Amino acid sequence: MTVRYPLPELKDLPEDLRARILEVQEKSGFVPNVFLALARRPAEWRAFFAFHDALMLKEGGHLTKGDREMIVTATSAANQCLYCVVAHGAILRIYEKKPLVADQVAVNYRKADITPRQRAMLDFALKVCQRSHEIEDADFEALRAHGMDDEDAWDIAAITAFFGLSNRMANVASMMPNPEFYLLGRVPRAK
Amino acid sequence: MTVRYPLPELKDLPEDLRARILEVQEKSGFVPNVFLALARRPAEWRAFFAFHDALMLKEGGHLTKGDREMIVTATSAANQCLYCVVAHGAILRIYEKKPLVADQVAVNYRKADITPRQRAMLDFALKVCQRSHEIEDADFEALRAHGMDDEDAWDIAAITAFFGLSNRMANVASMMPNPEFYLLGRVPRAK
Amino acid sequence: MTVRYPLPELKDLPEDLRARILEVQEKSGFVPNVFLALARRPAEWRAFFAFHDALMLKEGGHLTKGDREMIVTATSAANQCLYCVVAHGAILRIYEKKPLVADQVAVNYRKADITPRQRAMLDFALKVCQRSHEIEDADFEALRAHGMDDEDAWDIAAITAFFGLSNRMANVASMMPNPEFYLLGRVPRAK
Amino acid sequence: MTVRYPLPELKDLPEDLRARILEVQEKSGFVPNVFLALARRPAEWRAFFAFHDALMLKEGGHLTKGDREMIVTATSAANQCLYCVVAHGAILRIYEKKPLVADQVAVNYRKADITPRQRAMLDFALKVCQRSHEIEDADFEALRAHGMDDEDAWDIAAITAFFGLSNRMANVASMMPNPEFYLLGRVPRAK
Amino acid sequence: MTVRYPLPELKDLPEDLRARILEVQEKSGFVPNVFLALARRPAEWRAFFAFHDALMLKEGGHLTKGDREMIVTATSAANQCLYCVVAHGAILRIYEKKPLVADQVAVNYRKADITPRQRAMLDFALKVCQRSHEIEDADFEALRAHGMDDEDAWDIAAITAFFGLSNRMANVASMMPNPEFYLLGRVPRAK
Amino acid sequence: MTVRYPLPELKDLPEDLRARILEVQEKSGFVPNVFLALARRPAEWRAFFAFHDALMLKEGGHLTKGDREMIVTATSAANQCLYCVVAHGAILRIYEKKPLVADQVAVNYRKADITPRQRAMLDFALKVCQRSHEIEDADFEALRAHGMDDEDAWDIAAITAFFGLSNRMANVASMMPNPEFYLLGRVPRAK
Repeated sequence: MTVRYPLPELKDLPEDLRARILEVQEKSGFVPNVFLALARRPAEWRAFFAFHDALMLKEGGHLTKGDREMIVTATSAANQCLYCVVAHGAILRIYEKKPLVADQVAVNYRKADITPRQRAMLDFALKVCQRSHEIEDADFEALRAHGMDDEDAWDIAAITAFFGLSNRMANVASMMPNPEFYLLGRVPRAK
Repeated sequence: MTVRYPLPELKDLPEDLRARILEVQEKSGFVPNVFLALARRPAEWRAFFAFHDALMLKEGGHLTKGDREMIVTATSAANQCLYCVVAHGAILRIYEKKPLVADQVAVNYRKADITPRQRAMLDFALKVCQRSHEIEDADFEALRAHGMDDEDAWDIAAITAFFGLSNRMANVASMMPNPEFYLLGRVPRAK
Repeated sequence: MTVRYPLPELKDLPEDLRARILEVQEKSGFVPNVFLALARRPAEWRAFFAFHDALMLKEGGHLTKGDREMIVTATSAANQCLYCVVAHGAILRIYEKKPLVADQVAVNYRKADITPRQRAMLDFALKVCQRSHEIEDADFEALRAHGMDDEDAWDIAAITAFFGLSNRMANVASMMPNPEFYLLGRVPRAK
Repeated sequence: MTVRYPLPELKDLPEDLRARILEVQEKSGFVPNVFLALARRPAEWRAFFAFHDALMLKEGGHLTKGDREMIVTATSAANQCLYCVVAHGAILRIYEKKPLVADQVAVNYRKADITPRQRAMLDFALKVCQRSHEIEDADFEALRAHGMDDEDAWDIAAITAFFGLSNRMANVASMMPNPEFYLLGRVPRAK
Repeated sequence: MTVRYPLPELKDLPEDLRARILEVQEKSGFVPNVFLALARRPAEWRAFFAFHDALMLKEGGHLTKGDREMIVTATSAANQCLYCVVAHGAILRIYEKKPLVADQVAVNYRKADITPRQRAMLDFALKVCQRSHEIEDADFEALRAHGMDDEDAWDIAAITAFFGLSNRMANVASMMPNPEFYLLGRVPRAK
Repeated sequence: MTVRYPLPELKDLPEDLRARILEVQEKSGFVPNVFLALARRPAEWRAFFAFHDALMLKEGGHLTKGDREMIVTATSAANQCLYCVVAHGAILRIYEKKPLVADQVAVNYRKADITPRQRAMLDFALKVCQRSHEIEDADFEALRAHGMDDEDAWDIAAITAFFGLSNRMANVASMMPNPEFYLLGRVPRAK
């Protein structure tokens, strides 16, 4: 399966996109394909990453960075988005320091080696992903039983909703994960 | 059903949010609830409306403004999002100058009084909405048969994906449409 | 989408059909299309409206006329029947004197501005509509908790079942709602 | 599973209901439970059997009586209605003179020993039963390829729709088939 | 529907297969088609019947032979497998000495004349059949409430899983039930 | 999630089971959990592995060993079976010598870097897995277009059906994959 929309050249991109992409490359050692795949539409790119950062880099609340990547991995698997499962599964492994957790969450989060709090978090996320019209008070209460309040519920919902957008774009554009992602967090990082 | 997250006061919002909201109020005669409902999180609000504008105000391509609102109405109905069906159904009626079209598209777009091109556009949008992992070449070809190219396909997919995000947030937050929307475009506008 | 089966002329119909249709026209100001669309088969027409009247004009029980139209609107939306959602949504608005309720019930009844009793009524109706083989004692008990007895349950089930028939015929025949229905009950009636 | 609504006594029924029921008893040797189960509501009973007769005793068209019972059996199985599968499966065996056909049609009509014309007829019926909102021109053309015209399509749709009503009522009322039905048409009739 | 893979001749089969088949024929009066249909692959045949015997002839536990056939009938109906519903429905009628039970369990086990313990057993079986990834502690507890322990749960699951295999092979191979099965257990056995 | 049924000790197992398990341990460097998890029931264990070997070690036909593991990985993902996706995904990577292919096939085989022949093979397998009752001639023809005959179709179906059994048992027993599997075939094997 080849990428449906050709990736732009880094040199042809607006300066702000190029700067951010180079920064990511510096930090990760490669440019994740989503940065280039969406860059053909700079205005959408800017909104996409602004949204991403608002949700994933947000301070406060009870969700750890690992929790957030776990939501992305589980809901992207439900949406059968190859790019997001592989890319965010890698980040999940790193944040949680658990080399096995991403595959577990992607295949069947009910069997994953995660905490009861994370299980409740994923139950909520999957319902937002697949049946948001049926969300009701009892769903919020189930979160509260694990110390997650309405702001956390919003975070879970917004991360799920945002990556639902991302999943659909990746599926339509046949975005492929960089080969580097597949192994990240599975083996001790080379020094 | 009451709104789950209290709406902020306009006076408490950051200046850029307040300016845009006042501008919308000036133009529409009221403040659509989505502008206030999301404003409790300014960073998300800014990304949300930047994304919205990038897709809905975009120049070029073969999709009219009416086409775009039709996509929103049809996919929001599939996601059972009351806010978006009512609000964007209103705008659809106005752009298309067809007082009946929004109800038709929301209940069963296959019976709606729309063009074969619009029918193909909605077939693509609904597949992105519900089964994006099954999108394949034949789906793009079906668009091309009606003069819509790969950029139009991206537009349809992105609008569908973005409002899928919006639908989920509105469902989780129990966002209610302003009463004004229900009647807009159904009767000649008061002068 | 054009009507698939041509409508008969009023003058060619049997006397009893014509009389009823003229009576409806007198009362409503127009002839709802279902009366003509089914009239090509007089025996079916007679049974259909006898059934309709037995259920919708029935005396006694705890369901108001507004409740009955609400059941029709909600289940017809689940069956994606344009004719019934638009026509009975109009009657629902009139009986309930709520211009917004029909759109709410059609898009997502869980968000509609209705009573808890009506919510329970619609939960039962939707289950009969979509999974009647799973109806069990607990479903009847949920009605009883809101003062609805087994006769009311029968009423809800029979209305749902009858309009399920109607929905399928309207969908197969591509029956279109009269334009008059779309606005009924949304604005004060002209005098 | 006991019947949820008690059956009325024959002697307590209105004269026209009693007469028809006695006639059926005379002909069949027993009173099929549906005649008593619905008789507690005479107005609905009359409409129900008038509709039944209009569809199942109708003259003309290309559907045989066996075809009609086959439609009932297949769609009632899809709706998981025990009463209709067993009762109409019995009549199907008798009309088609095929002791095995009812079980085949009920479990998986695609494997049944029926004609290609009957297979097309059931494809149409099942689509009306489960996804009537997606019925389109191609479905009518598939019938025409087997000599079935738009009147036959109406017949198939109306029989499917009417028994969809019947299935839901039988499921809600927990109507049980008479023991006599299970064996009818499986063995040569006693003389 | 004809069988897709030709049945081998008994004389061409390996000795162990032939011996078992002749034994079955001796006992039943005919050779159930599954014995011949799978015999074209002797290694698979041997494993299949070894598995079958390990589950269906197993000593101990709380499941009767009738219970086991009931599980097969109910789950095979969910998988729309004509061969298994008809063949095992016959054995179910014989073991349970209830001529009506197989049709009831196949069409809608919720309406069947079975014990509450059997109802719980089938609830577990159907969940294993259709949503095994959602099986959780509460499902085991529901069995325990009816005196079925974790070994019984394993039995139910294994029978369901094994016949899920059988159902798929029978569906793919278009395996047809022997005519003899349809009547077995419905009428007193000829002596 | 802990294993629901305690694993037996190797020393307590019948001799033939222990011999096979020690052989596997010798070859793989560890004992895959399925060998122990099923060993608590030796008769089922023997049938299970006899079936496994008949399908996975079978000579002849057009399916390579890599093809067979690909079928297992794709259908086990559809059944959300953690054990089989991780264990057979590992073997798939090794046989295909493609470190990325297992994740691709598990998340969305339509996007995987596989041949058109393998894509057709998986389309058939997934239909057997999820809708075997709808398998028809056209599905066999689609295989033939890629050089796969009716024996290959049987192989695909039987592998899918057998691992459907395995998936259900692993899900019910909460069988967890050995940690060793997660990394196998992703990195060059240590020498």
